[in-house]
Amino acid sequence: METFRIFAGGEFYKSSREIIVSNPYNNRPVARAWQADDKLFELAAGKAVEAFPVLRDMPAYERSEILGFISREILKKEKTFARLIAREAAKPLRYALAETRRAAQTFLVAAEEAKRPPMEYMRLDWNAGARGREGLVKYFPVGPVAGISPFNFPLNLAAHKIAPAIAAGCPIVLKPASSTPLATLALAQIVAETDLPKGAFSVLPMDRKTGNRLVTDPRFKLLTFTGSPEVGWSMKEKAGKKKVVLELGGNAGTIVAPSADLEHAVKRCLVGGFAYQGQICIHAQRIFVHQDIFDTFQDKLVAGAKKLKYGSPEKDDTEITAMIDEDNASRVEEWVNEAALSGARILCGGHRKKAFYEPTILANAGPGMKIYDNEVFGPVVTLHPYKDFEMAVKGVNDSRYGLQAGVFTNFVDEMDYAFNHLEVGGVIHNDVPVFRTDHMPYGGVKDSGMGREGVRYAMHDMLEPRILVKSNGA
Amino acid sequence: METFRIFAGGEFYKSSREIIVSNPYNNRPVARAWQADDKLFELAAGKAVEAFPVLRDMPAYERSEILGFISREILKKEKTFARLIAREAAKPLRYALAETRRAAQTFLVAAEEAKRPPMEYMRLDWNAGARGREGLVKYFPVGPVAGISPFNFPLNLAAHKIAPAIAAGCPIVLKPASSTPLATLALAQIVAETDLPKGAFSVLPMDRKTGNRLVTDPRFKLLTFTGSPEVGWSMKEKAGKKKVVLELGGNAGTIVAPSADLEHAVKRCLVGGFAYQGQICIHAQRIFVHQDIFDTFQDKLVAGAKKLKYGSPEKDDTEITAMIDEDNASRVEEWVNEAALSGARILCGGHRKKAFYEPTILANAGPGMKIYDNEVFGPVVTLHPYKDFEMAVKGVNDSRYGLQAGVFTNFVDEMDYAFNHLEVGGVIHNDVPVFRTDHMPYGGVKDSGMGREGVRYAMHDMLEPRILVKSNGA
Amino acid sequence: METFRIFAGGEFYKSSREIIVSNPYNNRPVARAWQADDKLFELAAGKAVEAFPVLRDMPAYERSEILGFISREILKKEKTFARLIAREAAKPLRYALAETRRAAQTFLVAAEEAKRPPMEYMRLDWNAGARGREGLVKYFPVGPVAGISPFNFPLNLAAHKIAPAIAAGCPIVLKPASSTPLATLALAQIVAETDLPKGAFSVLPMDRKTGNRLVTDPRFKLLTFTGSPEVGWSMKEKAGKKKVVLELGGNAGTIVAPSADLEHAVKRCLVGGFAYQGQICIHAQRIFVHQDIFDTFQDKLVAGAKKLKYGSPEKDDTEITAMIDEDNASRVEEWVNEAALSGARILCGGHRKKAFYEPTILANAGPGMKIYDNEVFGPVVTLHPYKDFEMAVKGVNDSRYGLQAGVFTNFVDEMDYAFNHLEVGGVIHNDVPVFRTDHMPYGGVKDSGMGREGVRYAMHDMLEPRILVKSNGA
Amino acid sequence: METFRIFAGGEFYKSSREIIVSNPYNNRPVARAWQADDKLFELAAGKAVEAFPVLRDMPAYERSEILGFISREILKKEKTFARLIAREAAKPLRYALAETRRAAQTFLVAAEEAKRPPMEYMRLDWNAGARGREGLVKYFPVGPVAGISPFNFPLNLAAHKIAPAIAAGCPIVLKPASSTPLATLALAQIVAETDLPKGAFSVLPMDRKTGNRLVTDPRFKLLTFTGSPEVGWSMKEKAGKKKVVLELGGNAGTIVAPSADLEHAVKRCLVGGFAYQGQICIHAQRIFVHQDIFDTFQDKLVAGAKKLKYGSPEKDDTEITAMIDEDNASRVEEWVNEAALSGARILCGGHRKKAFYEPTILANAGPGMKIYDNEVFGPVVTLHPYKDFEMAVKGVNDSRYGLQAGVFTNFVDEMDYAFNHLEVGGVIHNDVPVFRTDHMPYGGVKDSGMGREGVRYAMHDMLEPRILVKSNGA
Repeated sequence: METFRIFAGGEFYKSSREIIVSNPYNNRPVARAWQADDKLFELAAGKAVEAFPVLRDMPAYERSEILGFISREILKKEKTFARLIAREAAKPLRYALAETRRAAQTFLVAAEEAKRPPMEYMRLDWNAGARGREGLVKYFPVGPVAGISPFNFPLNLAAHKIAPAIAAGCPIVLKPASSTPLATLALAQIVAETDLPKGAFSVLPMDRKTGNRLVTDPRFKLLTFTGSPEVGWSMKEKAGKKKVVLELGGNAGTIVAPSADLEHAVKRCLVGGFAYQGQICIHAQRIFVHQDIFDTFQDKLVAGAKKLKYGSPEKDDTEITAMIDEDNASRVEEWVNEAALSGARILCGGHRKKAFYEPTILANAGPGMKIYDNEVFGPVVTLHPYKDFEMAVKGVNDSRYGLQAGVFTNFVDEMDYAFNHLEVGGVIHNDVPVFRTDHMPYGGVKDSGMGREGVRYAMHDMLEPRILVKSNGA
Repeated sequence: METFRIFAGGEFYKSSREIIVSNPYNNRPVARAWQADDKLFELAAGKAVEAFPVLRDMPAYERSEILGFISREILKKEKTFARLIAREAAKPLRYALAETRRAAQTFLVAAEEAKRPPMEYMRLDWNAGARGREGLVKYFPVGPVAGISPFNFPLNLAAHKIAPAIAAGCPIVLKPASSTPLATLALAQIVAETDLPKGAFSVLPMDRKTGNRLVTDPRFKLLTFTGSPEVGWSMKEKAGKKKVVLELGGNAGTIVAPSADLEHAVKRCLVGGFAYQGQICIHAQRIFVHQDIFDTFQDKLVAGAKKLKYGSPEKDDTEITAMIDEDNASRVEEWVNEAALSGARILCGGHRKKAFYEPTILANAGPGMKIYDNEVFGPVVTLHPYKDFEMAVKGVNDSRYGLQAGVFTNFVDEMDYAFNHLEVGGVIHNDVPVFRTDHMPYGGVKDSGMGREGVRYAMHDMLEPRILVKSNGA
Repeated sequence: METFRIFAGGEFYKSSREIIVSNPYNNRPVARAWQADDKLFELAAGKAVEAFPVLRDMPAYERSEILGFISREILKKEKTFARLIAREAAKPLRYALAETRRAAQTFLVAAEEAKRPPMEYMRLDWNAGARGREGLVKYFPVGPVAGISPFNFPLNLAAHKIAPAIAAGCPIVLKPASSTPLATLALAQIVAETDLPKGAFSVLPMDRKTGNRLVTDPRFKLLTFTGSPEVGWSMKEKAGKKKVVLELGGNAGTIVAPSADLEHAVKRCLVGGFAYQGQICIHAQRIFVHQDIFDTFQDKLVAGAKKLKYGSPEKDDTEITAMIDEDNASRVEEWVNEAALSGARILCGGHRKKAFYEPTILANAGPGMKIYDNEVFGPVVTLHPYKDFEMAVKGVNDSRYGLQAGVFTNFVDEMDYAFNHLEVGGVIHNDVPVFRTDHMPYGGVKDSGMGREGVRYAMHDMLEPRILVKSNGA
Repeated sequence: METFRIFAGGEFYKSSREIIVSNPYNNRPVARAWQADDKLFELAAGKAVEAFPVLRDMPAYERSEILGFISREILKKEKTFARLIAREAAKPLRYALAETRRAAQTFLVAAEEAKRPPMEYMRLDWNAGARGREGLVKYFPVGPVAGISPFNFPLNLAAHKIAPAIAAGCPIVLKPASSTPLATLALAQIVAETDLPKGAFSVLPMDRKTGNRLVTDPRFKLLTFTGSPEVGWSMKEKAGKKKVVLELGGNAGTIVAPSADLEHAVKRCLVGGFAYQGQICIHAQRIFVHQDIFDTFQDKLVAGAKKLKYGSPEKDDTEITAMIDEDNASRVEEWVNEAALSGARILCGGHRKKAFYEPTILANAGPGMKIYDNEVFGPVVTLHPYKDFEMAVKGVNDSRYGLQAGVFTNFVDEMDYAFNHLEVGGVIHNDVPVFRTDHMPYGGVKDSGMGREGVRYAMHDMLEPRILVKSNGA
């Protein structure tokens, strides 16, 4: 069995805490790995502190070359990465490959942004007291960063923390999800070949207790967490003086208006609703469809959902497979059943077999049901007819969350209304909320988080402005 | 009779070349003024050169306060200015007042932008050869500016040259239109009260021969001209080493699609077509209306045009009055008649009485007719039905010119197609091409000019970047 | 006696909690005011929530005009404001007047920045998956803001919260310092004359218990606090999901190198060290002087300190007067005495009379003494000789704090080294750390805070980006 | 003998106008090439027009990938390119290799900038008339570009036209220097392998008559010329309506102040003065040295100049070799002799052997001598003592030209004074004027040109802004 060692302070280590990572689809072991203990945590944290001045002072072109190298190596090994992700996360190969390519893109963007940090030069002589003075604002890295990434995009959501950190000049210690640590450990093998200062990047699978030191240790100046809202918000309270970036989830809404291209909308909603079994922060959970096209849309969507090809995540043509574990599948089952008892109609799906839960579409779901109020993080979509566009926007906003929303319409006024009134971080026009490209600002409002990722945006939080007020020598 | 003296090098002068400015509506004299001779030109140019280092080195807050003062004074005297413009230019009072307020806005924007010149601070260490180097880019004023402004907005189109020049730190010598010099001469009286260095602003009515020295004199580092395409482009050839900004005219197109709010479109097209007798660079000359709504639109527009209230420009309720002179009215008459002979239908208007030409709407005009191919600069609008949107865009683009275009539609794809394919400087969504607000980039492509105005944009051309490559001392 | 009522939700109120504000210099009552109780807090918070959509949707020009009006009114009443501040805060009149003018400037800057919020437009087609897509990023106000401002700049440090909040579109409830609430209550009288929606601005003197509701109430989406580090950091932990901006204090360092203009350095250090009795967050507490010029510098500084004119804050020529209260003066006395016992030498000053503490200069102070390690917030300066520049930088960095630092030198390499290595928010070249102009980014690192003020920077935290991902229609 | 065909409209051609490119060092033939006739010019121009809409509408990632590919291929073939440049231009191999790597960098920067064109999104509601309106500004390529590049950097100065043109979406027809066409023709072979639309890039060696069609043909919307001032400025007059960017030469000045690191200054002045025999636009022609260090500096510089290793450009250790042709060497000889007759002292060098002219240093040169007033473009440096810094700045400014200047000083006030007062496009601190890195803004003022190159800056001129004024739908 393949083994993946802990990468701490620039070296690979085993520990006494061996773990076997297995494929959720068939429970077969994928690889052997290890969890870091306190000693390795201490090593990684200490080396991060040591690496900080070195990384901070590296010329831009050196950081950029390292990031570019990582990007190219990921692409060279894209099949290996894709297969690893497919197996550890039960992610259908097509999506695993797409994720791998996006991770390469994330590092490429960071290679470019490393050369373009925010910098400002400004006149200060706006009143007599500042006559003859100019300001130079340079952005300095905040210091070591603590990163915690989730199971669902084991490579690219980690890349969205690692790549900007290196680009900004911040060492980073990353804790991958316990169930899916392999992709980042494989990434560490690439990083180990570069000239990145030892300690500038460590990846430490950890149990929750050890991992929480990332939250509380004052040597880390910023905590960037992607995961569940409950965990995220409680971390904010324990983070001490450090900055906190939270990328949490939601129960994203999508609006389909009569002027939309219906075939396109259906096709995209199938992706938004069921890709990776709905285990995506911006999964298209609640779909609001204009009443005039509701029946047609519903029929087409149900027909499409039924055709999704089930199989092993390692197969090229698989579209749907097991969820990350049986607990989650059971939770989804329970929520759907609860909804059904409260009056929701199951249009398709609704059955579970171990960790697999069928692609499921519900009508008549609504407030008060878990399936509507909470983040389902599973292959379930609820459909809601609407009469006028403002009501649809209200429906989407009727949520504790606000990450992204999709709006299918060809009317300028509807698009603008949606942009101006949807309480989210991103409004996706003519597409589902799962749309994301890796350099755009990405993140949520309300309970969906604080701060933004998207390389340049993530870097911004990792940098601290310092102004030099100087004479302009005129 | 009121008198307005030349303002040259910070002082007021008479010359031997007296002129009487008269009201085109009734040919009554408005005021006495003077044209500058070579000696005064020399004085103004020489003082501009002398004022340059003083103005260049003024703190931002001082330039800003001067510009703010001018803005407030214009507002205080808005009725005086409006009446002056109404009389010298035969501009209906409501439009003259609107212009005056916009001029105040133009100076206000410049007061703010004077403090926010472009400045850049950048890493240079993108390769080993530039290791340890940073760049500071500061924008320095180019030097004295030569400005030539047109008759149709005697105050605000001059303001669009004067205000950015002062904000950027460039002295300016302005030649107003011969027929309408009074508003800028009145403005000079305000400027004379400020701490602006003597010579930093001169306004010289001149005959064409003397005025041409603005084009050829190498002491001026930038020529900014607003006027006719023919004159403008020939100036570019004679301008020597100086930078040239040309704000010329056009035969702007407007598209009215079926999804538009028709009443709104008609209302705005009446303004776009007939405000100030169509003597506006972005006058809505050619209107392309979807065939399904063509007849309705035509009927409403014709009905509206017939209702426009004719009268003295000095009256509050006047909507239409005389053109700038009888020559121009005759030219328009000729063009309309030529078009009628070639098959165009006159839907309303078509008659001239001295300098007054009736608001006129034509159908069936097209390529080969002067009224379609050239800039009419008069109260004439041509209507063209279209079948599909791309053809309407082609129709608008079927022109030597490209200043602005209006597009009335509620379809996203049409708005985007228009934005991406209309060969113009500005696409106005749900309004006519005459829309302009004073801080937006404004200017044309093709034969309509080069460069952009809009305070910050105008300033940009008046500034020259200089980089300081320095060690970052890391 | 003059009275100043609470301003809550757009109306003025008294409460059952009357307070008498007195002049620390002579303990004479200045005015009568009231503290808000829970009911008024509830009123203000509720009205802020109601005002939010109204303020958010106001056109930029309306917000700008309101802010401009406030700025002009402050200037019109500058003497009244200055006298009020002089009396409630025992701030010498010259400094109180300077503060008033800066507050007017802060509102002017906000009037301009209200029209220039951050907005972005970007290509998204950086890979095939985003082909044909563009991004529009608009920044929306986060919601109601809770502001807590300190006693030392009762007007301008409140202005730095109020002005950006209005400019950004966020209603704000402000708690002024208990000892100096009058200036902001007077400001409220100006605001009450504007068209600002009722509830968009409230100013509520409160006791600590009621005031803490600003920290914990989830209706406020951002907490902006200026005050002591201890209070600030503990607020961060209790703030729930809201964003937190902390402007705390420090023990700022200044370096005087041999190439500096010594007379200038001495003159500025007297201001930096003793203006407003040192009760300034960026007070020049620790001064590092090159050994070759140490004695000369020390002699001149001591001579200057001895000459500072003591008197009533209401007099024009007073340079030094009482501290904010006797408790603080006693604390400073204690710290100086502790230092003296541990080996520090008192070069001048060192005596207290009630709330007045003499301008005091110490040599031989160092780590382990409160006067060196902590923020003295009083009229005490410590002098430290240094041998090489890097050691001086180390000395400044030898602190829990990092707000601003001053560096007097004419060497490029020293200036750059200081900029790149001083762990602060601002490095002031050839001036003391107290330099601040109101549009520059201002704020600290380490224990001195998080986030930046300076209108545009403060606005940035009050805004939340939202991207519209749209087809570019090409 | 190797052959290099014309690349026109995407295909390689021979013509009837064969030319033999020879090595100026030994007059041996390097390769066979061809000059384009009118037919090929017509083909290239026509295909550029055809390619325009295709290139304009290419997604950013496709343009970026093409540019990235070109960059990597240049690096792969860097030895081939370096040898070719060494031979066609008599450029010592070390410099030819450096140029090749810089050309790769230029394309890399363009690959990144292609994804980051300028785009703006702004509030327009700065007054009531624009209520509810927002502006989107997109920058569209102007159309086909005509490029003319010089002999001295046959690859990288062409790259500075080609790379930004492709990045901006403008087809380009390039005329390389007649004496050194090979590097760009070799580059064409790389371009031919990419997916760039046929016609988007053509490289046409031409005689002057045919080449002038690039200046006058109205199908080209921008002319970008690098070469001599005389030719450049006359082109501006003949360019019709097109935009013109001129990168011309100068007689750059350098200042060496007493606080400078003298060894470093000497070392860099040897490079700035004699690299590539001084045939560089930013060659350090006039060096102003403070009188206190003048003799020492002079002795060291002369000693260094005498040690420069002469030899074949193809050798690794050659530092100095033949000039581009004997005519130019004779011209330099004449200018030096004229100066000597007028009182200048030849400190070293002063002899010619065919196309080789010795590295020459003069004292006592001054205004009125060609060697001082004009651009020598040869291996000659003049030395001038100065007493105070302002005089040195005056000395540098005593020139028709203003490209770049070098300033060696460690004083902040001198550096600032130089930055604020040197009339140039770039002030290089602690280095000679030849410093350039490929993404920095580069270009001259006064007779040295207009416009800036440096990829992003060059792109800016190749783009035309277009605003969409739209309702914000609020």
